[in-house]
Amino acid sequence: MGNSFGNIFKLTSFGESHGSSIGGIIDGCPSGLSIDLNFIQEELDRRRPGQSKITTSRIEGDKVVFMSGIFEGKTTGTPIGFTISNNNFKSEDYDKIKNVFRPSHADFTYQEKYGLRDYRGGGRSSARETACRVVAGAVAKLILKKYKIEISAYVLSVGNIFANEDNLSFDNITSSKETNIVRCPDKNAALKMIDFISEIKKKGNTVGGQIKCHVKGVPLGIGEPVFDKLHADLGKAMLSINAVKGFEYGSGFEGSKMLGSDHNDEFESINGKVSIKTNFSGGIQGGLSNGEEIYFKVAFKPVATILTKQNSVDKEKNNIKIKAEGRHDPCVVPRAVPIVESMTAMVIVDHLLRNRTTKL
Amino acid sequence: MGNSFGNIFKLTSFGESHGSSIGGIIDGCPSGLSIDLNFIQEELDRRRPGQSKITTSRIEGDKVVFMSGIFEGKTTGTPIGFTISNNNFKSEDYDKIKNVFRPSHADFTYQEKYGLRDYRGGGRSSARETACRVVAGAVAKLILKKYKIEISAYVLSVGNIFANEDNLSFDNITSSKETNIVRCPDKNAALKMIDFISEIKKKGNTVGGQIKCHVKGVPLGIGEPVFDKLHADLGKAMLSINAVKGFEYGSGFEGSKMLGSDHNDEFESINGKVSIKTNFSGGIQGGLSNGEEIYFKVAFKPVATILTKQNSVDKEKNNIKIKAEGRHDPCVVPRAVPIVESMTAMVIVDHLLRNRTTKL
Amino acid sequence: MGNSFGNIFKLTSFGESHGSSIGGIIDGCPSGLSIDLNFIQEELDRRRPGQSKITTSRIEGDKVVFMSGIFEGKTTGTPIGFTISNNNFKSEDYDKIKNVFRPSHADFTYQEKYGLRDYRGGGRSSARETACRVVAGAVAKLILKKYKIEISAYVLSVGNIFANEDNLSFDNITSSKETNIVRCPDKNAALKMIDFISEIKKKGNTVGGQIKCHVKGVPLGIGEPVFDKLHADLGKAMLSINAVKGFEYGSGFEGSKMLGSDHNDEFESINGKVSIKTNFSGGIQGGLSNGEEIYFKVAFKPVATILTKQNSVDKEKNNIKIKAEGRHDPCVVPRAVPIVESMTAMVIVDHLLRNRTTKL
Amino acid sequence: MGNSFGNIFKLTSFGESHGSSIGGIIDGCPSGLSIDLNFIQEELDRRRPGQSKITTSRIEGDKVVFMSGIFEGKTTGTPIGFTISNNNFKSEDYDKIKNVFRPSHADFTYQEKYGLRDYRGGGRSSARETACRVVAGAVAKLILKKYKIEISAYVLSVGNIFANEDNLSFDNITSSKETNIVRCPDKNAALKMIDFISEIKKKGNTVGGQIKCHVKGVPLGIGEPVFDKLHADLGKAMLSINAVKGFEYGSGFEGSKMLGSDHNDEFESINGKVSIKTNFSGGIQGGLSNGEEIYFKVAFKPVATILTKQNSVDKEKNNIKIKAEGRHDPCVVPRAVPIVESMTAMVIVDHLLRNRTTKL
Repeated sequence: MGNSFGNIFKLTSFGESHGSSIGGIIDGCPSGLSIDLNFIQEELDRRRPGQSKITTSRIEGDKVVFMSGIFEGKTTGTPIGFTISNNNFKSEDYDKIKNVFRPSHADFTYQEKYGLRDYRGGGRSSARETACRVVAGAVAKLILKKYKIEISAYVLSVGNIFANEDNLSFDNITSSKETNIVRCPDKNAALKMIDFISEIKKKGNTVGGQIKCHVKGVPLGIGEPVFDKLHADLGKAMLSINAVKGFEYGSGFEGSKMLGSDHNDEFESINGKVSIKTNFSGGIQGGLSNGEEIYFKVAFKPVATILTKQNSVDKEKNNIKIKAEGRHDPCVVPRAVPIVESMTAMVIVDHLLRNRTTKL
Repeated sequence: MGNSFGNIFKLTSFGESHGSSIGGIIDGCPSGLSIDLNFIQEELDRRRPGQSKITTSRIEGDKVVFMSGIFEGKTTGTPIGFTISNNNFKSEDYDKIKNVFRPSHADFTYQEKYGLRDYRGGGRSSARETACRVVAGAVAKLILKKYKIEISAYVLSVGNIFANEDNLSFDNITSSKETNIVRCPDKNAALKMIDFISEIKKKGNTVGGQIKCHVKGVPLGIGEPVFDKLHADLGKAMLSINAVKGFEYGSGFEGSKMLGSDHNDEFESINGKVSIKTNFSGGIQGGLSNGEEIYFKVAFKPVATILTKQNSVDKEKNNIKIKAEGRHDPCVVPRAVPIVESMTAMVIVDHLLRNRTTKL
Repeated sequence: MGNSFGNIFKLTSFGESHGSSIGGIIDGCPSGLSIDLNFIQEELDRRRPGQSKITTSRIEGDKVVFMSGIFEGKTTGTPIGFTISNNNFKSEDYDKIKNVFRPSHADFTYQEKYGLRDYRGGGRSSARETACRVVAGAVAKLILKKYKIEISAYVLSVGNIFANEDNLSFDNITSSKETNIVRCPDKNAALKMIDFISEIKKKGNTVGGQIKCHVKGVPLGIGEPVFDKLHADLGKAMLSINAVKGFEYGSGFEGSKMLGSDHNDEFESINGKVSIKTNFSGGIQGGLSNGEEIYFKVAFKPVATILTKQNSVDKEKNNIKIKAEGRHDPCVVPRAVPIVESMTAMVIVDHLLRNRTTKL
Repeated sequence: MGNSFGNIFKLTSFGESHGSSIGGIIDGCPSGLSIDLNFIQEELDRRRPGQSKITTSRIEGDKVVFMSGIFEGKTTGTPIGFTISNNNFKSEDYDKIKNVFRPSHADFTYQEKYGLRDYRGGGRSSARETACRVVAGAVAKLILKKYKIEISAYVLSVGNIFANEDNLSFDNITSSKETNIVRCPDKNAALKMIDFISEIKKKGNTVGGQIKCHVKGVPLGIGEPVFDKLHADLGKAMLSINAVKGFEYGSGFEGSKMLGSDHNDEFESINGKVSIKTNFSGGIQGGLSNGEEIYFKVAFKPVATILTKQNSVDKEKNNIKIKAEGRHDPCVVPRAVPIVESMTAMVIVDHLLRNRTTKL
């Protein structure tokens, strides 16, 4: 259970990191959408391991193969099945983690919940699963293009190094963020982040970070109160991504410190167009998009796999020392940018479709 | 759409603030549960308006009436229908907000989404709806008692006044928080909060705040990866509450600044019982409860209804000035404590029931 | 669980036959629909007990009260909560069936499933619950009027007495069926049915029957293969009604005896309009409406409550004799006609709304 | 939409008859189930084309490949992804049906609903899709073995040739039905059926038939009233299978002709075990299993693809003549037996799991 996301535009995914392949089924994708395979592959390439010196050096090809739902280049309205092969899936030896539980991993909880687990490389709990989200998110983005809705996420912080977010317009972000390997549009901050990640990578350590995401062009009124508020579904989408610890939109946690007189977004009408002077609401009021730019932040913890010795236990509950080996990400946020965008795209498309049924 | 919450233990709610009543249906409540009506009413009383000098002075009786699903004091496994009357529902005149949009309210977005709206007192977007969540949450809490699972939320902050959360044990919190009207277990902070709220109330202003919630006794392994991770469902639950702007669990946003070597929760086995030395995970690993205490924080914005003049627009898109009147909450967090607990209880019960189907 | 029906236009219902009231919540009803309360009440009156000499003489007022989702006569897009009081709910003494299981009732299975049951008048398993379906169905019919879709069901058979269905056009059926108390448009058959029901009623016995339902004006292409085919959802809707034993559409069971060369509905194009020469398909091909008239049949068993002595057992598994008393329906089909229509209306509206999301 | 089946044990399927492959994802399968790959393949072999002289002579290997959710021979509780290659998917030329609509096929309705369609071999509307149901059904059967629940379906009729169902016990059926190619346990009827199918096959014609299904060993109390009654979900399951026109359980349509005094299943208690003297209920009372044998019938129309000339239209709405070619099934029921069993198994497993959440 729990492997489907969305109400109308719905992704169901499968796959463990070291099975033969991962994949998914997108049900509810509207018919008549031209599928740009290059674009989808580019999105996957933005997520894939081994893309730069600050990610894991593990190489995964991550080629997506579509098996259904597309005919002569267009979606047919039937479910879109796809797979991504796990090319290296036999190459590593995981026998030594078979009977031990790595700290802050899902080894222990999976073992206890299910009574057994595929221990190879994290199995289902591996972030490899997110590649399927990127495929579905890329299809969703193709739909959003028709609506002229754009999504742009970037790395806001790595450890204590923060980008200066104040002067970054949507277009700024979009044009700058992919020009550096850490995906931060503030170039000074980006250089510091890259240096810092390189340094902690050498030490076998890891670091957390934050991603900020902007969405432009969402029409008024999507979201389904009282439980499926737009930001509630965005929040769930983000929190379902591996390593995420927090979500806030608009003024967020800072907003909790403010007075109503400062926080309210006053309306103004200019030439018959209603807009707001400030945007503490983050583009969402009462759970519905208000036509303004939507923005939110997502906090990621440091990757749990570190190359130094830690205390842990084994299946027989003996105290042991454990030290990871191999190639791992020192910081997950640069590669998580397309994942955040993908989940956002799925939520927006799903709500656009749900919203079609609102009025008589 | 969007008015149901939960998969197995499911609340569907209805009702506008100024209709004849609000209410709901709880489907999926297990049979054989003794219903303690006093307890449920007490929970409602913790949420109701007019309970102290720092809440709205508007009085709502909020008496719940159950219509089905309970027989001779026990649940029968059939749906539990209930209503709460809106006693004062004809007493106020809302004609003057009929054609205007209040800043940072849902007036504008509801009008645009649905083409019309029940403008009286916020209609469906009013926080009055949360009374139904408290009823369902109270039923969920009765189930949790059987599992010896306890939930305790409290007011962590009001504006910039923060409780010192470090030395507060679960039992501490539980015994202290209800002893003052702001529901903060740190007495010094509580006094400051009460003073501050009283002061801004006099000025017709409002302020935001944060709530922290602890859950004790959750068995290992509940949560349904990869999308219905326990914290993802908790996050959605919280974000669906009126005025919530952010959610974080365990180390949260602070965790994004940490190194893996500091953040990992090392296991230790003491007399055959596995535990963790730190709890940055917040009781959840890989989306599954790990048997430790679960904790998370929820950020609430300041209430949008303030008694001072603001710029706004009307339906014809004219610029106007607007000033709220009547009785409103200066700060929502004291009354939101039972709401946070209720949504938490529903999520935990739903996942406990889902978890019954995990193993062969 | 199991008390919600529909995907977008969704009814969740509650209530036992002898609780204080029954009711429901309609979520997903589009905004802007004018609610004709008289029409809804008329539909309820078509279902209510005591309406003629061939139904139970038990009188139930069945007045529906709406509590939300309607403002100034129109739906607002928010959930529509409603109740129907059980006026006589304290009047009867059910103590003597408390510990016995009536043959072919749900007493035994409910007791075993839930461990306890509300034994008064069948509790949740009573057909009283279907009044809520009629309310939701009436709202759905109001939507269908906007689409110019009409539904007309009638009593096809009572026991072995069958109407001659061959020469009954849609308009024929609609104009004739309500002119007699058994709701059969074939007047000769109707007279025989009424006589037969009167006769078996005198003997304290009951008899089954069939209902045929026609739907006119459904646009091409509604239905969601491969599992939510239009006829699959219609079938589930009908089979969920109390006492239903079978469902067939188009050629149905007779079609299983035919050759393909006889059964295929050949297309013909006349003046640019494609139609079919025969309609063995029953208006549905590949699970999608094909623009032709949809028709199907529903089989109802004889009511299980008979006024003669039967063998049964009690809770302690002793063999006993049991004899029902009071006022009961001798044949359920006349009153089931509006229920069949209501469930049909809900399915059609739900699929019309789902279909809005099909194309880009 | 519409490509998922089940609530907890849930199959989502994908695939067109002439894409590269079909497949699916089973979510919610309990962990710890030993997967007998041979058994699953045998089930697929019972469904596959080309298995005898009375089926299509088209050969499809139908080898299932599992990609996830199984580790060291056991299910892990994570989603089970699988595919079946369409080996011959490039071999035929479907250009000539590209622009025409075959009578009683889904060509016309798919084209109209989606605006385009994969016309090769029926695309998504092809019964090839049911192979995925057999895979999921075989997994479900492995679960049912643990519960000692058995399912046995057989061919009850072909055209007007009916098996004598009266003297067929469950064990009789199970041991006999697979001994002949038409899967009918009444040997005399079987011979006649085989002859008749052979004869109509020669003529390029097709014929319908009925399948009867028995389920033994279902524990008391599964089913979820009021909408997800056990027989309602079985009915939907059957009606979702290609070519099905009707469903009845227990006394079915015949039951509608009976009197209550004849139809009621009187209870009797023998040595403390409650049973029923007759079984017109078909093992289900009030939507819940009553511990007795469940049985139902499913009606299949004649296959629409016939090798003789028929009137039809093309996309430009011209009247045309059309004549199918190639290899097709003259009668679908022998191959549909495992499909009926599979859908039954999925429904029973899903309800067994749902039932685990019923009691406190």
